[in-house]
Amino acid sequence: MSQFRQNPISKHWVLIAPNRSKRPEQFAQAQVISQNMPEIIPACVFCPGNEAKNDDILRYPKGKNWQIRVIPNKFEALSDVPLTADKEFYVSRSGTGDHEVVITRKHNEPIALQSITTVVDTLKILQQRYLELAKHPQLAYIQIFYNHGREAGASLIHPHFQIIATPFVPNGIHDEITGCYHYYQAEKKCIYCAIMEEERKQNERVFYETEDFIVLAPYASRSPFETWILPKKHASNFEEVSEKEMSQLANVLKFVLGRLYIKLSDPPLNFYIHTMPLAQAGHSAHRKEVYHWHLVIFPRIAIWAGFEYATGIPINPMPPEDAVKFLK
Amino acid sequence: MSQFRQNPISKHWVLIAPNRSKRPEQFAQAQVISQNMPEIIPACVFCPGNEAKNDDILRYPKGKNWQIRVIPNKFEALSDVPLTADKEFYVSRSGTGDHEVVITRKHNEPIALQSITTVVDTLKILQQRYLELAKHPQLAYIQIFYNHGREAGASLIHPHFQIIATPFVPNGIHDEITGCYHYYQAEKKCIYCAIMEEERKQNERVFYETEDFIVLAPYASRSPFETWILPKKHASNFEEVSEKEMSQLANVLKFVLGRLYIKLSDPPLNFYIHTMPLAQAGHSAHRKEVYHWHLVIFPRIAIWAGFEYATGIPINPMPPEDAVKFLK
Repeated sequence: MSQFRQNPISKHWVLIAPNRSKRPEQFAQAQVISQNMPEIIPACVFCPGNEAKNDDILRYPKGKNWQIRVIPNKFEALSDVPLTADKEFYVSRSGTGDHEVVITRKHNEPIALQSITTVVDTLKILQQRYLELAKHPQLAYIQIFYNHGREAGASLIHPHFQIIATPFVPNGIHDEITGCYHYYQAEKKCIYCAIMEEERKQNERVFYETEDFIVLAPYASRSPFETWILPKKHASNFEEVSEKEMSQLANVLKFVLGRLYIKLSDPPLNFYIHTMPLAQAGHSAHRKEVYHWHLVIFPRIAIWAGFEYATGIPINPMPPEDAVKFLK
Repeated sequence: MSQFRQNPISKHWVLIAPNRSKRPEQFAQAQVISQNMPEIIPACVFCPGNEAKNDDILRYPKGKNWQIRVIPNKFEALSDVPLTADKEFYVSRSGTGDHEVVITRKHNEPIALQSITTVVDTLKILQQRYLELAKHPQLAYIQIFYNHGREAGASLIHPHFQIIATPFVPNGIHDEITGCYHYYQAEKKCIYCAIMEEERKQNERVFYETEDFIVLAPYASRSPFETWILPKKHASNFEEVSEKEMSQLANVLKFVLGRLYIKLSDPPLNFYIHTMPLAQAGHSAHRKEVYHWHLVIFPRIAIWAGFEYATGIPINPMPPEDAVKFLK
């Protein structure tokens, strides 16, 4: 019944342990939250009317009727004053970096419910901010991510993306690229390209396809309904996605999030884009032919507990094959 | 204000990003949950009266008035039938292993509120079950852990430890021992012993000490109020802890959990014991002089979000120095 599965890139294990007493629809939340809220909430700092509470980095379109707005993060995770001086035994570095928030106008419209125009425009603005931040010579990596729902760590309900830029390549990214590099050295091809090939063959975990993108549940899913969106053609850098592809990506993202919204009643989730570190990170294994940018959707349905934190092995009660059958 | 800190063993980074608008006591829960419940709840499968719903592995003392009971896990995460056959591209293995639950009698008595006799007896029974499971030639590692509170993944409120034994050494454990091994090769000493020495010198993060144990907040704490309990004398194996040390460990554990219970109003938390893999795992770096067993308490107060899952860098809003000052 249960099975350990290895992620072919990181070599990390997960334990797929189906809970036979629970059908897929029972992973759904008790109720749909987002659509029961008003479009504007006066107490929400991200809502129209409260613009004065945050500085502007960008508004699109300009003026009062903005649909998308970029602001610096107020509770800034990163700043450039070190907390304490370095001690010899331990290694630290000051939190130089950047943290921006990308807000869409309506309080009650998560991406699943947004117009396709809004999704396309938001992705384009994310790309634009990425390119702007990438100019800083001190930065090494830029992380774009999205938190939806309190259980997914979203402190504010109002839909918003976040961008955090770090002065070094985070362990998680570096380890993943190292896994890709080892595969590339052995097989002379990109492991994500190989995964897509294999998934088409096995035909159990592919959820959706368009001309340029494929959507699948990874073999070693760490969470029920974990979903990856991958460009079909090998490409390492999100910031190089063309306008045509971006509009397709918006459609795919809205489709997948919409399916999760409906089938699982607006579940809490995170999603994030993994892309190549900046050129200035200057690592010899960070090569365009080795890495493949992608978007990971990570529903927060099974709570990680002591076993996960102790061993690094997530227990996933929902086999990805069943998840795809249910979502399709 | 914010600072990246590196864990000296795993070399993983955390971001200490103090939330200046939040005082330590504001990390407390809204209310104390455990002590407002009755001692026995007829609907709880772990409560006295419902013994027939689970098989017995052990009762202490024997009979109806057991104080501690060991049962096999009903929703068994591990079993020995593979879910699907292996596919060439992906690597899997069947979930052979063991999963046991160690229950204390009273529904409303988490460890913080238990008598010291109960805590001592429970730890001794955990050690006894460890030694029993360690005999299986197919097992490689035994994980003892505890989940408290729904937000920490506890599906049942009734206080219980869990033991999961795996047929291979989990990545998290292996990576940690590898970190210890590298340090040992360079410095000819155990890194945990070196950390204790350094922490006594810096004297900012040591929370409590007894003859045989030290309690500290790690330099690169991943969560507000993360706490480590370490034996002072170098020792790699939890199952070799003496009776005298075990009674001291029980006192230390109850003291720390009690402090968290009172100061943070019964927070959700996980804790787990990291100990040497079994001899049959047979890895050459798994040497007694290299590894140091310890207990990690991981309060689930800051929810990990998209940034944490994307990059592997936890954002911790509570500097461990401030956490210790508050708990002391």
